[in-house]
Amino acid sequence: MDRRREELMAAALELFGRRDAGNVSIDDVASAAGASRALVYHYFGGKQELYVAALRSAAADLEARLRPRRDDRPLEELAEGLTRYFDFVEQHAAGFAALLSGGPANHSGEIGEIVDGVRNRLFHLITRQMRVDEPGPVLRVTLRAWIASVETAGLDWLEHRDVERPALERMLVEHMVALLRVGAGHDPQVDRLLRGLLREHAP
Amino acid sequence: MDRRREELMAAALELFGRRDAGNVSIDDVASAAGASRALVYHYFGGKQELYVAALRSAAADLEARLRPRRDDRPLEELAEGLTRYFDFVEQHAAGFAALLSGGPANHSGEIGEIVDGVRNRLFHLITRQMRVDEPGPVLRVTLRAWIASVETAGLDWLEHRDVERPALERMLVEHMVALLRVGAGHDPQVDRLLRGLLREHAP
Repeated sequence: MDRRREELMAAALELFGRRDAGNVSIDDVASAAGASRALVYHYFGGKQELYVAALRSAAADLEARLRPRRDDRPLEELAEGLTRYFDFVEQHAAGFAALLSGGPANHSGEIGEIVDGVRNRLFHLITRQMRVDEPGPVLRVTLRAWIASVETAGLDWLEHRDVERPALERMLVEHMVALLRVGAGHDPQVDRLLRGLLREHAP
Repeated sequence: MDRRREELMAAALELFGRRDAGNVSIDDVASAAGASRALVYHYFGGKQELYVAALRSAAADLEARLRPRRDDRPLEELAEGLTRYFDFVEQHAAGFAALLSGGPANHSGEIGEIVDGVRNRLFHLITRQMRVDEPGPVLRVTLRAWIASVETAGLDWLEHRDVERPALERMLVEHMVALLRVGAGHDPQVDRLLRGLLREHAP
């Protein structure tokens, strides 16, 4: 990719991370990157396109961070993935909060699609890490519920920061086990999966 | 409230429940209510205002349905509340899915605020029902996570309908207990609350 474009994108991501998109102008991005306004328009077309491009780039970054680092012990991998997730939330604080908590007057369906795309790919990362090929309905609902609760915990943490991050991350791993335990009572696939996970993590 | 306005609103809610807002026109609403296009404009001003008014009305309806019917046994009340929640989801299927899939990034600030307002009032309904005056951080995160997972389960059910509703509703009540159990390991307020809840439901 073009180096100049990358510099503009980095500047945009940094600004969207610190301020609500409504308070970031093309001029701000240009001046943060030491570029001209015209160059930003040249590469991105306009503010909305720049925002969408920044969002795609942030989504790709998040997914890269969450890619599992190893094959065994999925619950430890999950714990480490959560730490990297919260690093991301922290780095993109304003953008994350604005995007997910009812923020800017952005009507484009494109943005919703990017957000849902990330959720879907997270879902597949988790099932792959847990070595599940075809998640049945109960496992699907369980994992989607967990992903939603992680997102909400991220928003809550940005708003309040009154639970220590490590404790919050631990709680969310425990949530996963607790939700799977509930699912295990409803579905043999989840029951087998949970037994396998716990066996792998037995001392 | 004006009867004519109420009829228009009922027609709008019915249409927004069956079709994505993008596929509902002022003419559709007028003709469903046996009214003129001019009357819809008279009462609501335009499509966006009509949509926002319908959303407020649906939010008020949801909150009325979720208001607890009795004081004791909060977990049973929660189970019954979930049944009424899923009745609502079913009745407003298209509108609910369109509103919540993709997240609030899809909407104007006003709409995001209505959605967040419903979540906040749900939160307070639940804490009141559980007789908690001041939810601490761990309880707050736990309940917000649960509310998010209920919303996601509602969306998932509309998409797939491959788990029976009663089983899904039972799972979600079990999720609440499971998440509180996790929270109890991190915070004495949650621990006391959970013991109280379980004692109240002991045979």
